[in-house]
Amino acid sequence: MDKGTLLTFRPQIKVIDATLRDGGLVNNFYFEDDFVKKLYDTNIQAGVDYMEFGYKASKEIFDKSKFGKWKFCDEQDIRDIVGNNDTDLKISVMADVGRTDVDKDILPKDESVIDMVRVASYVNTIPAAIDMVEHCAKKGYETTVNIMAISHSNDSDIKQVLELIGQSPADGIYIVDSYGSLYPEQIRRLSDIYLEVATKYNKYVGIHAHNNQQLAFANTIDAVASGVNYLDATINSLGRGAGNCPLELLLGFLKNPKYKLHPVLKFIEEEMLKLKENGLVWGYDIPYLITGVLDRHPSGAIDCIKKKRTDYANIYQELMGLE
Amino acid sequence: MDKGTLLTFRPQIKVIDATLRDGGLVNNFYFEDDFVKKLYDTNIQAGVDYMEFGYKASKEIFDKSKFGKWKFCDEQDIRDIVGNNDTDLKISVMADVGRTDVDKDILPKDESVIDMVRVASYVNTIPAAIDMVEHCAKKGYETTVNIMAISHSNDSDIKQVLELIGQSPADGIYIVDSYGSLYPEQIRRLSDIYLEVATKYNKYVGIHAHNNQQLAFANTIDAVASGVNYLDATINSLGRGAGNCPLELLLGFLKNPKYKLHPVLKFIEEEMLKLKENGLVWGYDIPYLITGVLDRHPSGAIDCIKKKRTDYANIYQELMGLE
Repeated sequence: MDKGTLLTFRPQIKVIDATLRDGGLVNNFYFEDDFVKKLYDTNIQAGVDYMEFGYKASKEIFDKSKFGKWKFCDEQDIRDIVGNNDTDLKISVMADVGRTDVDKDILPKDESVIDMVRVASYVNTIPAAIDMVEHCAKKGYETTVNIMAISHSNDSDIKQVLELIGQSPADGIYIVDSYGSLYPEQIRRLSDIYLEVATKYNKYVGIHAHNNQQLAFANTIDAVASGVNYLDATINSLGRGAGNCPLELLLGFLKNPKYKLHPVLKFIEEEMLKLKENGLVWGYDIPYLITGVLDRHPSGAIDCIKKKRTDYANIYQELMGLE
Repeated sequence: MDKGTLLTFRPQIKVIDATLRDGGLVNNFYFEDDFVKKLYDTNIQAGVDYMEFGYKASKEIFDKSKFGKWKFCDEQDIRDIVGNNDTDLKISVMADVGRTDVDKDILPKDESVIDMVRVASYVNTIPAAIDMVEHCAKKGYETTVNIMAISHSNDSDIKQVLELIGQSPADGIYIVDSYGSLYPEQIRRLSDIYLEVATKYNKYVGIHAHNNQQLAFANTIDAVASGVNYLDATINSLGRGAGNCPLELLLGFLKNPKYKLHPVLKFIEEEMLKLKENGLVWGYDIPYLITGVLDRHPSGAIDCIKKKRTDYANIYQELMGLE
């Protein structure tokens, strides 16, 4: 496999901007249209390969009045931003197992500007995820299965579900470090396991990292060195809890000259600083370190941040006691 | 060489708290005695191996009235904190080539509570560094040579100076990523180069990382996996510019049960938050990303942060033009 070096690049590498989708978990998907349009333009200028607009959540499960539109990603809402999207930037949406009605909510590809549907699943719901993937693939979409929370699964279960996904029509398989608990050497080991199956079935491998231990960027570029090609990032790390791999660091690292850092820096100064000033809180902080070290869901840390708790030593004892 | 795994530990690994020394570069070494005493107690409770108090700067070169006392680390000032230091925590100080008068300012070891003198040097001043090391070793100290700014040196120069240091009485040799520009795969390559020479001469290798690209922790633990044993960190990353490897992340990673995270979290909530509230500014920010990506000295970024500039796209163009 072509793994490249620090001074070369693999054209197979694709960058996925997940700012709206993972960021939507911070602000319930209430982004201004101007913000979204500017983000779209920024991604085009920066050479980003995919922009994920949000979730395709079922309106029968979620109350539409309680979320911004990017929780649902209606076709018309995306088109209001991108028109027919006559650009090289592809558009993706995420569908959670059990929370998306693919029959009803996913149009045939030739009626949609969406290019890719990524199905997010825990290990134990992979058969349901594969059902959704088959459905979306039949409708004409590029698809991936994003296996979440793998730090809580053992290798033999992971290998089993990789084989299942291998035999499905999914185009790609994602390593997802939901708890931001994985260290680079674990990511390299997992990359090897995923790539072995993916190569056999002619699929690509992607990574979605979280920054609880300031490792989202490091884990992403270590996965690149192992041969992982689809790289999730968000501008300024915007995303649930400690956030994600910062797009600006990733573009600074990648050597393909089509990637441009300048437009992303411009977007940060013009848009992201405003979000912070307006009180949106995200990114690395001590409570996330604690859930990361303990390999726990970040919800306990998110709760502490909301309450502005800074009694870190107590938080550590409390969260440790929750096993 | 024993490299250990994620679930074992090497007793040879030593953690050096450089909070006062690198942090002193942020506040001109003006730390309250209470802060320093509490940091000393915290390090003892946390199982940290060395605490670096500051520099042994020459008072003939630096005006004593313009810096806090930890720029000079007078014997009595250290003793006022640690008494005779009847603990397992060792005490280190740093001596810059050309800025320390080792003849005058370094006492014989049996008159001092200092255990280790670390000599910081660029590649081109290594012969002067070795002079200082010989002097300090003769006086009875553990010594290291910390080779700074190696991202601007080529491998053959680095190998030459490693050979020189190898033949000196230095106990350890440090990889220093002064500009926070090195990626994990470069750190692994450099670790191998350093360790080859160090092993030949029976010395240890250390790492001092900077966080310009959120890689200080990742680079440190990747160096550990390669066999590097002396690990610099600072509480809450306190240090020049983007700061250093956070001690709290490092202790969370290391598996030796003597290391305790709890006292460090307590110190952060009780002391570090106050420093921030009182206006001290340090840590990862976009201008440091820019100097890191560009492999430049952080001074340009520090200047932008001081001026509270957020025109990141312009800053990028300006700093790129400075080659």
